[in-house]
Amino acid sequence: MILEQINSPKDIKKLSHEDLQTLVDEARQALLEKTSQHGGHNGPNFGVVEMTVALHYVFDSPKDKIIFDVSHQSYVHKMLTGRAQAFLDPEHYDDVSGYTNPKESEHDLFTVGHTSTSLALASGVAKARDLKGEDSNVIAVIGDGSMSGGLAYEGLNQIATEGTNTIVILNDNDQSIAVNPTGGLYTALRNLRESKGAASDNLFKALGFDYCYLDDGNNLEDLIALFKEVKDSDHPVLLHIHTQKGHGVSFMEENREAYHAGGPYDPETGAYLGGSQSGETYSSVTTDLVLDKIAKDTRVVVVNAGTPMFIFDQEQRKQAGKQFVDVGIAEEEAATMTAGLAKNGAKPIWAVASTFMQRAYDQLSHDIALNNQATTILVYMASADAMNDESHLGFFDIPFLSHIPNMVYLAPTNKEEHQAMLDWAIDQNQHPVAIRVPVGPLVETGGKDTTDYSQLNKNKVTQKGSQVALFGLGNFYHLAEEAAKILKKDHGITAIVVNPRYITGLDTELLDNLVNDHQVFVTLEDGILEGGYGQTVASYLGKAAVQVQNYGIDKAFHDRYDRAELLESNGLTAENIVAKVIDAL
Amino acid sequence: MILEQINSPKDIKKLSHEDLQTLVDEARQALLEKTSQHGGHNGPNFGVVEMTVALHYVFDSPKDKIIFDVSHQSYVHKMLTGRAQAFLDPEHYDDVSGYTNPKESEHDLFTVGHTSTSLALASGVAKARDLKGEDSNVIAVIGDGSMSGGLAYEGLNQIATEGTNTIVILNDNDQSIAVNPTGGLYTALRNLRESKGAASDNLFKALGFDYCYLDDGNNLEDLIALFKEVKDSDHPVLLHIHTQKGHGVSFMEENREAYHAGGPYDPETGAYLGGSQSGETYSSVTTDLVLDKIAKDTRVVVVNAGTPMFIFDQEQRKQAGKQFVDVGIAEEEAATMTAGLAKNGAKPIWAVASTFMQRAYDQLSHDIALNNQATTILVYMASADAMNDESHLGFFDIPFLSHIPNMVYLAPTNKEEHQAMLDWAIDQNQHPVAIRVPVGPLVETGGKDTTDYSQLNKNKVTQKGSQVALFGLGNFYHLAEEAAKILKKDHGITAIVVNPRYITGLDTELLDNLVNDHQVFVTLEDGILEGGYGQTVASYLGKAAVQVQNYGIDKAFHDRYDRAELLESNGLTAENIVAKVIDAL
Repeated sequence: MILEQINSPKDIKKLSHEDLQTLVDEARQALLEKTSQHGGHNGPNFGVVEMTVALHYVFDSPKDKIIFDVSHQSYVHKMLTGRAQAFLDPEHYDDVSGYTNPKESEHDLFTVGHTSTSLALASGVAKARDLKGEDSNVIAVIGDGSMSGGLAYEGLNQIATEGTNTIVILNDNDQSIAVNPTGGLYTALRNLRESKGAASDNLFKALGFDYCYLDDGNNLEDLIALFKEVKDSDHPVLLHIHTQKGHGVSFMEENREAYHAGGPYDPETGAYLGGSQSGETYSSVTTDLVLDKIAKDTRVVVVNAGTPMFIFDQEQRKQAGKQFVDVGIAEEEAATMTAGLAKNGAKPIWAVASTFMQRAYDQLSHDIALNNQATTILVYMASADAMNDESHLGFFDIPFLSHIPNMVYLAPTNKEEHQAMLDWAIDQNQHPVAIRVPVGPLVETGGKDTTDYSQLNKNKVTQKGSQVALFGLGNFYHLAEEAAKILKKDHGITAIVVNPRYITGLDTELLDNLVNDHQVFVTLEDGILEGGYGQTVASYLGKAAVQVQNYGIDKAFHDRYDRAELLESNGLTAENIVAKVIDAL
Repeated sequence: MILEQINSPKDIKKLSHEDLQTLVDEARQALLEKTSQHGGHNGPNFGVVEMTVALHYVFDSPKDKIIFDVSHQSYVHKMLTGRAQAFLDPEHYDDVSGYTNPKESEHDLFTVGHTSTSLALASGVAKARDLKGEDSNVIAVIGDGSMSGGLAYEGLNQIATEGTNTIVILNDNDQSIAVNPTGGLYTALRNLRESKGAASDNLFKALGFDYCYLDDGNNLEDLIALFKEVKDSDHPVLLHIHTQKGHGVSFMEENREAYHAGGPYDPETGAYLGGSQSGETYSSVTTDLVLDKIAKDTRVVVVNAGTPMFIFDQEQRKQAGKQFVDVGIAEEEAATMTAGLAKNGAKPIWAVASTFMQRAYDQLSHDIALNNQATTILVYMASADAMNDESHLGFFDIPFLSHIPNMVYLAPTNKEEHQAMLDWAIDQNQHPVAIRVPVGPLVETGGKDTTDYSQLNKNKVTQKGSQVALFGLGNFYHLAEEAAKILKKDHGITAIVVNPRYITGLDTELLDNLVNDHQVFVTLEDGILEGGYGQTVASYLGKAAVQVQNYGIDKAFHDRYDRAELLESNGLTAENIVAKVIDAL
């Protein structure tokens, strides 16, 4: 096996073209074996096997700098840069992350996970090279989906402005995570593909790039020839390379959205193993309610930035029709568009994962909140119990979102409450309302929630008590309940249990009352402690003669953590909370 | 005077073309009188007088929706929509804000102040129109500078995807705030201007727009004809209109950067009144140190997004040469580029105003902080004592920046400390370091600060004491000192006074010691209270038997406030702090 003998890109350069093709085949086979057992980003990697081998054959990493956008397509790059074992030996599958990672290799320049950053990173890397008077190629590999993000455009502009060596590889497989929208960039790319690069009004030429088109981006010989041609260019070049997502695996080629990422799956048939989740979940409850609203009111519209699967599958998107908008991987557009929609009388719902929402902080603040537009924001995967790669964390949203004026951020704790909050959010026209879609097993109370959520910042006392006040926010409400049970059972203390419901404001009337007969206040939140909800409580109670204990996650980019361990290390267990409360009394 | 008789756009439609030209002249004269006395955005408004008159003559606002990007060019629009008095009568100059403002008029759709949002807003407004089955024109007016922002590109894509009526007016005066960079978009626009719109590789056609070019964008007749031609278009149109910044005022036409904004000035000669600031300021100290670093090390490079004046004037930019980069109005590119620069061995310094820094939250978090790149971020105008329009506030940066892991955010309190921090930040390679450039009168200690800032989170005790601990962060350190003086003089209490220096971490050793002999802890910060520095102190001290009083600004988009009133209403006076401390003891 050739792949096993590749310890660094140097080893690739010695190979014959025939051996290179064998290496391609071996790498693709290794991808199939690992992703079918382990899961991962499938389609993006199968599409760039030839490209990656050609890159390392022609260019000289790490002297030449290769920067992968999102970097979810870097598996073959990892195989060729000393990490083949992590794709060949199941015992070592977890040795590497799913993204480029400088801690693993000098061939990985950046930890990346969000889209559209590679060109801006490249512009800086190239400028540093020029300032130091050095020679090297700077290569950015970016997909058509990532090219729809505004930062990619800013990066193109800056690279063109610098005017020195940077090679942009636009890996165009005509599909983001989901099917690309039509129009704008995507139409421009289609026109170029259909004309084999000869279409008039070439976007990239307009911006000052030398432009080359390669139609068969899975042809190793063509790729090598192209890369040799542009290596050591003294000016910016854009290589528009047409690849096939999931290339070489029939079921991936045929169903590109399903095999963008996922697994494990049957390597023969592609059938995903483990089956699909049956029964209601917080996601399905959300989707059902939104689809119902859409059916009843043509002004209700769901906006999403390239990740529709959080709220709608392909069938549901068809059902929503014109009331569903995918703006491409462009969260800022999604956020600001909702402000425009609300202003002109529509009822927009932006569905977004916590980690991606942070890409639109300014738009949340200015376009939505400063303009106080009644948009509904469904915040998915806002929890330590979500994607756990350091580049996709979902526990920073409370500090960055909840201190924006005018914003109402809600943390439901059960199905009926979530439904009532969402129902209210969509139909009201007073506030921007974000809802932290609960993560975890569905909890049902069985009774309809008739709360008037327009009365902001009213907490719900779910158990009356004395001495100890437990504030369990959103996903961690159950933890407050658990601690209360142990306090009662083991210590005879009946704590008051509070469901804050509102993240963005305190129930000061309740707090003012509680300080009279409660000595210890505990706050629990499924997010980082610093800058979070609990600290606003601690500050408010700073003047009272009570003790406040805030629990949350410590400020760090935790990487591929074990959730139970993370929570335990932060004291987030009912047993620890009870022990600390008893200490304090 | 015709202008005085214009109460709404309806009144314009009755005018003859001759009267329209008179209206143009009167509006320009009113602009000159007001801006020369009152200051404001000069160049942008003088350039669009004819365009604005033509817009309101041809289109039917408010049925037709006109959205101004940044909206600093909306003065004539205000004159023509019932607010002429605010430009004709000095007593009413302050009746209107410097940006569009829905509270003033139904003709103003959004409160805007940051760039590049108009197209995304328009995409939402148009989509809502389509969902409701209504007819109206949606018009976005955007400058060439704003078009360099990534969100503008995302907006173009979405408008093209929708494919229905939206008229994008690209007001190209070939200059942002400062002279435009060359390359990328700017080269594309120049090629189009020089070819009168006929250049091959038309960026906007590539993205799917119908494209029209107008070379004399200050010709009223041409503008009216063009707008009539595209009114009620059933598809997206981009009008590339070449205007002259500062048109009709010779000194503005000649020195476009100086007259972008400013005033008051002599309306005859343009000479700015009030004179320039002499002597050292925190800004000049910063610039001097950075220029010195640049001269000594070719790896030091200043990156800026379209607002170079915060750090360098035109002469200083020349002096910095290739070690100064203006990326256009593209904060995300600026932030991410610095990560690339640092990774490849340069020493980047990003100079940015607090209000604009928030446009790059994700890039600060992921590209800089997650990658832990040693970039220096100079945060200007981070204070309640800075731009006070609700769209340009500088007091949200602590909550959004300081809870990002790995980030070191420093708050200097005097010249020598600021110099020492900046010197350390540029040369170290361990952390991303942001520095809140002090706002207010320069304070000098006279002694060099030899602190080792690599020892993170060590606070400086500037006065020892007991009972009361005063933590004065950055700009509000002086307030802690003042309160301490009054406590001593009026109450015989010697408080401990602490200069925290670090916003991003607590000196827990100091705090643990202080709880033994201090009963009241006070924190003071020049930013919003919620999510700020003080609340991290309150949380940490929640378990101690001490009182904590946090002072900062209440969470709101305060608009054109009086600073002294704002501080007083938030209890931020030495007298109030002392009174509250005495109450608590």
